[in-house]
Amino acid sequence: VTTRSEAIALDDADPLAGFRRRFVLGDEPRIYLDGNSLGRLPLATRDRLRAAVDAWGERLVTGWHQWIDAPRRVGDRLAEGILGVEPGEVVVADSTTVDLYKLAAAVLSIRPGAIVVPRDEFPTDRYVLQGLSELHGRELRLLEVDAVEGPRPADVEAALAADDVALLVLSHVNYRSGALVDLPSITALARRRNVAVVWDVCHSAGVVPLDLRVHGVELAVGCTYKYLNAGPGAPAFVYVARELQTQLRSPIAGWFGQRDQFAMGHPHVPADGIERFLAGTPPILLLEAVDESVALVAEAGVDATRAKSVALTQLLVELHDAWLEPLGFKLGTPRDPARRGSHVSLRHPDAWRICRALIERADVIPDFRAPDSVRLGVAPLYTRFVDVWDALDRLRALVEAGEHARVAAVRSRVT
Amino acid sequence: VTTRSEAIALDDADPLAGFRRRFVLGDEPRIYLDGNSLGRLPLATRDRLRAAVDAWGERLVTGWHQWIDAPRRVGDRLAEGILGVEPGEVVVADSTTVDLYKLAAAVLSIRPGAIVVPRDEFPTDRYVLQGLSELHGRELRLLEVDAVEGPRPADVEAALAADDVALLVLSHVNYRSGALVDLPSITALARRRNVAVVWDVCHSAGVVPLDLRVHGVELAVGCTYKYLNAGPGAPAFVYVARELQTQLRSPIAGWFGQRDQFAMGHPHVPADGIERFLAGTPPILLLEAVDESVALVAEAGVDATRAKSVALTQLLVELHDAWLEPLGFKLGTPRDPARRGSHVSLRHPDAWRICRALIERADVIPDFRAPDSVRLGVAPLYTRFVDVWDALDRLRALVEAGEHARVAAVRSRVT
Repeated sequence: VTTRSEAIALDDADPLAGFRRRFVLGDEPRIYLDGNSLGRLPLATRDRLRAAVDAWGERLVTGWHQWIDAPRRVGDRLAEGILGVEPGEVVVADSTTVDLYKLAAAVLSIRPGAIVVPRDEFPTDRYVLQGLSELHGRELRLLEVDAVEGPRPADVEAALAADDVALLVLSHVNYRSGALVDLPSITALARRRNVAVVWDVCHSAGVVPLDLRVHGVELAVGCTYKYLNAGPGAPAFVYVARELQTQLRSPIAGWFGQRDQFAMGHPHVPADGIERFLAGTPPILLLEAVDESVALVAEAGVDATRAKSVALTQLLVELHDAWLEPLGFKLGTPRDPARRGSHVSLRHPDAWRICRALIERADVIPDFRAPDSVRLGVAPLYTRFVDVWDALDRLRALVEAGEHARVAAVRSRVT
Repeated sequence: VTTRSEAIALDDADPLAGFRRRFVLGDEPRIYLDGNSLGRLPLATRDRLRAAVDAWGERLVTGWHQWIDAPRRVGDRLAEGILGVEPGEVVVADSTTVDLYKLAAAVLSIRPGAIVVPRDEFPTDRYVLQGLSELHGRELRLLEVDAVEGPRPADVEAALAADDVALLVLSHVNYRSGALVDLPSITALARRRNVAVVWDVCHSAGVVPLDLRVHGVELAVGCTYKYLNAGPGAPAFVYVARELQTQLRSPIAGWFGQRDQFAMGHPHVPADGIERFLAGTPPILLLEAVDESVALVAEAGVDATRAKSVALTQLLVELHDAWLEPLGFKLGTPRDPARRGSHVSLRHPDAWRICRALIERADVIPDFRAPDSVRLGVAPLYTRFVDVWDALDRLRALVEAGEHARVAAVRSRVT
């Protein structure tokens, strides 16, 4: 792709092109490259949320006849459409942080040994594990990995060699570099060593085929507000393979995880199935959003989405090499498409001001990630090839003209 | 009040009567007496939710500049308008179950001793404490209390006499009986014994003046979907008195509780203030609902709301005595209005079928609570005196005619 017309031709030939019209695009001509942080609003999800609010108003408490099973019902949709696991293995509720806490604590309560997590794992995952390591008196080992390539099977093999590890937590796609970790190999080697692995699939769910059951994954958590487009703070999901469910108990023993919830008796007896990983009353309106948004992603199909994602990130890498490397940028993402998720990290010493300038002066929305990454995410259901072309063209022009040097150096709390 | 006209006259004189028109009433002429389980939808909240969804669609990730402080900002509104505490002492996020878990675990990690909770405390609270008692190796003592009057100061005094208790958890208003516990006296006596008390104010927030700071309460949790009308599964709140905040650490160490969230460094360093009790990404759209709904309740004023609530429950009690006691009902709620919250429990051996018949044949929505309670809640912002009159009149007629005996005995999972 060496001209803008070629990018447009790719869009014309794109089998997923029609999906873009199914999202709210009220911010055009802005180019949005942060769907990896917060996905766009699908029109159907907007309508579904309105209907859900109206249903609350009209049905009031009788709505619970339908709502009560929503965490499991929406989980089933995710299981089959996105995660490649079976109905009855997923529930949607709480945040990724709380869900990771539940799974990690459940594992630690039945397995002795240390906790391993990459040092550059997404912060909330590290924090949760730090808290649990203190609570359970376990060693927390921070795995040093290549900042671009992320944890490779050999890194993990070495970390588990001493056979004293209980739990390994890994992101499938690294939040900063976009490195796509070799999930099948690492899952297999951890299982050989009898180490429990919780996969965090926040940055891959909906955009990378997961096939968790095929690969022998037993535990996973992930959010729904990135490539699944369910809205800011939409609830996360927990996956526990059926075979493990009765062995693991959530540390947060709530009434939605109780076997006979409305008997309201004593003591707590966990539900037999995946519902035992529920805790309190789930956010019903947002579960409706997740249901609708996941249906849209499943309709497009994760395989087709992945094919377009690879082509889009490939264009990003090529334009980086042609236009940005000469300006002092370095690619912070693996070059091998098979080792890449759906976002690309462009590293530059002045990354923060470049991000501000992109937003304020070029109408492009990237994401800054400390210390030096301009993070550009492509969401194949609504990101076009011409968007990538135009965004990198504007980025090149902006840095060439030194526009970013004119951005005030005051940093806000959020990018 | 001995005639329906007198009930209507009370409505005509009601200073809060105008608030009813500010809710969606699309289910009329149904009589809704379950606002203590799920509050009605305020018109302003419906509009606010629509605007919040649109803001997601238009602002996308840049919306986080406003959203990031929402748990604290909405917490401040609750602090001043509803809880009687100071800004910076409340955050809104997660469920009541998860929030109680955080506070109880935080207390147990710094205090030795047993856990005390009434045996008929709301189930999820007991379950959470059971889980923590196993995790921390603490004795869980189930306090036996009068089923109608709830825990009295003397009961609590006796339970704490051995000076080996770390934590006491109590509902301000019992979910079944509606007993309003003597919060000032129990808080004072627990403080004298150096026992931490977490108050669950789910069934009192918005309908009973709380004045938590005046009464020396240091820890509390509560939901927002009952008398605060924020919708099914809207997020709960955590209150920690400022003096205690730095002493307590949430067991769930998430990125929203980190001092410098976007530095994304290691290790976890809790925020200095109440934000340390946040965990993962909060449910932004629902926080907007809480903000709007709480504003409405605060506008009405909790003192005026309480006055009407007492008058409504008094009418319920009087009509029970006059009409229902002769039919085999027993009052399951304290007769002293000062010891009553905003719902009344009418006990009858056939309570479950009576509830079904009320819904199916009399267009009245009560709530069944095992084993034998017909629970009727009054929400002073939209429940009228004539509603109470009509509901009890229909209930009397239905039981007199034996209509409930014709309800199929098959029980659904939810009432």
